[in-house]
Amino acid sequence: MKVALTRKAHFNAAHRLHNPKWDEEKNKAVFGPCSNPNFHGHNYELEVTIIGEVDPDTGFVFDSSKLKKLIKEEVEDRFDHKNLNPDTPYFENKNPTTENLSILIYDLLRVRINKSFDIKIRLYETPRIFVDYPA
Amino acid sequence: MKVALTRKAHFNAAHRLHNPKWDEEKNKAVFGPCSNPNFHGHNYELEVTIIGEVDPDTGFVFDSSKLKKLIKEEVEDRFDHKNLNPDTPYFENKNPTTENLSILIYDLLRVRINKSFDIKIRLYETPRIFVDYPA
Amino acid sequence: MKVALTRKAHFNAAHRLHNPKWDEEKNKAVFGPCSNPNFHGHNYELEVTIIGEVDPDTGFVFDSSKLKKLIKEEVEDRFDHKNLNPDTPYFENKNPTTENLSILIYDLLRVRINKSFDIKIRLYETPRIFVDYPA
Amino acid sequence: MKVALTRKAHFNAAHRLHNPKWDEEKNKAVFGPCSNPNFHGHNYELEVTIIGEVDPDTGFVFDSSKLKKLIKEEVEDRFDHKNLNPDTPYFENKNPTTENLSILIYDLLRVRINKSFDIKIRLYETPRIFVDYPA
Amino acid sequence: MKVALTRKAHFNAAHRLHNPKWDEEKNKAVFGPCSNPNFHGHNYELEVTIIGEVDPDTGFVFDSSKLKKLIKEEVEDRFDHKNLNPDTPYFENKNPTTENLSILIYDLLRVRINKSFDIKIRLYETPRIFVDYPA
Amino acid sequence: MKVALTRKAHFNAAHRLHNPKWDEEKNKAVFGPCSNPNFHGHNYELEVTIIGEVDPDTGFVFDSSKLKKLIKEEVEDRFDHKNLNPDTPYFENKNPTTENLSILIYDLLRVRINKSFDIKIRLYETPRIFVDYPA
Repeated sequence: MKVALTRKAHFNAAHRLHNPKWDEEKNKAVFGPCSNPNFHGHNYELEVTIIGEVDPDTGFVFDSSKLKKLIKEEVEDRFDHKNLNPDTPYFENKNPTTENLSILIYDLLRVRINKSFDIKIRLYETPRIFVDYPA
Repeated sequence: MKVALTRKAHFNAAHRLHNPKWDEEKNKAVFGPCSNPNFHGHNYELEVTIIGEVDPDTGFVFDSSKLKKLIKEEVEDRFDHKNLNPDTPYFENKNPTTENLSILIYDLLRVRINKSFDIKIRLYETPRIFVDYPA
Repeated sequence: MKVALTRKAHFNAAHRLHNPKWDEEKNKAVFGPCSNPNFHGHNYELEVTIIGEVDPDTGFVFDSSKLKKLIKEEVEDRFDHKNLNPDTPYFENKNPTTENLSILIYDLLRVRINKSFDIKIRLYETPRIFVDYPA
Repeated sequence: MKVALTRKAHFNAAHRLHNPKWDEEKNKAVFGPCSNPNFHGHNYELEVTIIGEVDPDTGFVFDSSKLKKLIKEEVEDRFDHKNLNPDTPYFENKNPTTENLSILIYDLLRVRINKSFDIKIRLYETPRIFVDYPA
Repeated sequence: MKVALTRKAHFNAAHRLHNPKWDEEKNKAVFGPCSNPNFHGHNYELEVTIIGEVDPDTGFVFDSSKLKKLIKEEVEDRFDHKNLNPDTPYFENKNPTTENLSILIYDLLRVRINKSFDIKIRLYETPRIFVDYPA
Repeated sequence: MKVALTRKAHFNAAHRLHNPKWDEEKNKAVFGPCSNPNFHGHNYELEVTIIGEVDPDTGFVFDSSKLKKLIKEEVEDRFDHKNLNPDTPYFENKNPTTENLSILIYDLLRVRINKSFDIKIRLYETPRIFVDYPA
């Protein structure tokens, strides 16, 4: 049976939700205060899970210091103290919802981690709302 | 791959555990202080998870404000500041354990949420005991 | 300078708020759903703080195992899995609010702990509401 | 002895730190990534404490539902899903640090709460950094 | 559909990571400060999950008091206030990583719990690193 | 009125409690399992509070990045992944209790921080036991 190792990390960022194909009224109706024009922000709490076999030489599924470094390079350096809308090309034509941000973080880490491991992302937008990808 | 959105909510309620088919001695042996006749109570922390595809227009799996409203209508308005035993007809012939309460909350929300979404319930009875349904 | 040692504990109980000198309408207006007749309940999280000098032989202000035992005897055995209204004579003519319960817990522990120590109580009624006594 | 009642609340907002009297280099040196021009944001967790005597008729220091309403009107409606810099006139000539925001929240609530009560503010900017006012 | 019941528990222990087949330099390179010779330690937070059908007589999947007793006997009595390396024969030739400790706890509980139930272990080594077994 | 800024930090370490002036029997009676000879360990959660006036140029009481660096240099580099007994000369003739460790951390930071600021230490030994110095 496989083992999963999870590491938590933190970054904080501004964002707003807005669909440019819709007028202001429809954006307000769908996104409410999340579409306020001057942005708002969150302390994002991230959990990255790596699933695999335990290496008999180390007793590790994956070296958690190496995972910390990968999360810093791919996630914290990119998003921490940034504005997800103007500062992230990926969100030029896509809403920076927690759902889409989770998928992006998954894709950024997926290419850095050997395919023999499965990975999962949990991202808290607030202490009371979070997203898992893949579900 | 699908995405899961989870929203936390809170309610507090009294309850007691008791099987009317058993005598007091057996109830005491099986349920211990949970069967004390004058009730005790809990701050229930609820997590409702909705699993589905991300809508490309919104970037949402499900609108978390709409989920908040559904939880208020079906769970908080029904159970908050209530006594699960005398105030809930469902528990007339069924013990209000966290297991049975999770199943009831699942059933109440299931009929309000489109079948294209899967849903899951996590319910904390205390900070150290919780139930997931379906497992 | 003195040092403070704090130990957390937990109990859960039912209660309702109600002033017998007032009619039902006034009770409802003042206490809202907290006055529902069949009770509701809470997971009370308790913090007991003891302030004093560090004993040079042990390095302790107070033995935390002894404090755990005192809390069990005076607080958990008395209130856990109970209904604060019918099960506690102290609340026969006094509302079992978190304020009054904190004062009672302070009084119960004060007589068990040497007067050379100051003590303080913090009591969480829910994860979002708590009381400190003395302030 | 007096009793303190504390209620927690939540809002999320964008901000940046920047002193207009300084050039960009000095702002970067002093504020680091907190001065990034496109803003970043936080989930602010707020604790408001009210200190006073227990009312013998209610057993309350202060009605926690009334406190919830005051926090909503003065804090959440003003700051939630907003950008502290452009959306708050108070921060036109003052940095929206957690220290200054705590003082502003104190001042906003102070005028709404009877002077017979003392009040205190704790404000978490992140789960690992918070401010108390008055200290 | 089945229901899962989870109970949290706590123990604290010392350990160090070290592969005796490797020289000091390689141990340092792989395990970093976790291989410091005089040990370090953790507050391990454990979650044990039991999955099964709800018993119609009790409304329980599994009696949580019985689960508490099993965790005390198999986990807390064995590991709490101990040093995982010298005090645990199982780790004589195996590194006491959180991965291996989770597998050992699973194996110890598996033999005490009826095979009609599935079980799962989550073990926090620190508030930011945890392991799930089976994944 | 002054403002307090608090920053949290983390380190984990092994220790045991033992008074060399006492025989094994008395050590066992006073310290219980905390005196087990092979050590045990904890995830210490530290809060350092700095109290002072708000600087009108920055809006800060104290630069939280500078505080993070001071905590790393004086606390984390010294204690993290160490054994408080053999690795810390200060504890050669003094028990590494949470009380004594808090006083040591206070003293180490006090000399690094300008006397115009007051400082306070809160140190969690486990999630349920913590110490404040000065009280």
